[in-house]
Amino acid sequence: MIVLGVDPGSRVTGLGVIDVQGNRLIHIHSEALRFPADQPIGARMVRMVDHVEKLVTTYRPQVISLEKVFHAVNVKSTLTLGYMRGAVLYQASRMGIPVAEYAATEVKVAVTGYGRAEKHQVQDMVRMLLNLAKPPKPHDISDALALAICHAHTNPAALRDL
Amino acid sequence: MIVLGVDPGSRVTGLGVIDVQGNRLIHIHSEALRFPADQPIGARMVRMVDHVEKLVTTYRPQVISLEKVFHAVNVKSTLTLGYMRGAVLYQASRMGIPVAEYAATEVKVAVTGYGRAEKHQVQDMVRMLLNLAKPPKPHDISDALALAICHAHTNPAALRDL
Repeated sequence: MIVLGVDPGSRVTGLGVIDVQGNRLIHIHSEALRFPADQPIGARMVRMVDHVEKLVTTYRPQVISLEKVFHAVNVKSTLTLGYMRGAVLYQASRMGIPVAEYAATEVKVAVTGYGRAEKHQVQDMVRMLLNLAKPPKPHDISDALALAICHAHTNPAALRDL
Repeated sequence: MIVLGVDPGSRVTGLGVIDVQGNRLIHIHSEALRFPADQPIGARMVRMVDHVEKLVTTYRPQVISLEKVFHAVNVKSTLTLGYMRGAVLYQASRMGIPVAEYAATEVKVAVTGYGRAEKHQVQDMVRMLLNLAKPPKPHDISDALALAICHAHTNPAALRDL
């Protein structure tokens, strides 16, 4: 099963593709999408949608794994997260790819065994689980891969029908 | 100048198209897009994007007028508004249509002369300004038309480059 994990952000979006073969996790692709500070939000959404489309077409994931959102810093940042996260939900729906959502704590437990793990602990465990030469950086990439790993470790019933 | 006003919501979205000819405001089209309660958010975004595309292709607005958002009820509703509002920003950017944003108070002042006007006062004034036989309902439609009227009454410098 191919899983695409996305950690959407308006400055940096992390994307990670893994292949789950039984107990084996294979790193397929990962990258960070960086948006210029002066890029209007609509243009960022277009770029995000196009990029998700490209990754889905290239790697054919069966599912996209996204972090659940419960709390927020302020209205502006929540709206902005809604725009960037919405771009993923939109393109997933457009292409008929189901979206699975996991709380940050679930992701940390799935990857490190500890729900309050630090960013660098997640990075280290992602490196080990995927047999990478070094920890994936920035943490947006390791967070995206951790989301994909979390899906691999979790009941498929967590799939949300889009 | 053709203006498309949009009042995005995940249950009901109001859309209104007017033609501004000097001091004359002409009602071209208005409608409410209703989303079934069980429709996943990704599918609502797809429908919204497709509908905005259809209206832009049909009526060729030079600008889309949207309400500015400053406050919110809670994280969930703010995220949802981000998704639906984002669908408009996305499609506007995709089609190269600039977006103008106005605070609710600005819209009420532009339409009724009073920044704390009630919904029904906005409806009545929209009816009068556009020479409609009866007030546009639901208020999502009159709010969308009011946003378009507000743009017509406001300095074009308010245009935000997407």
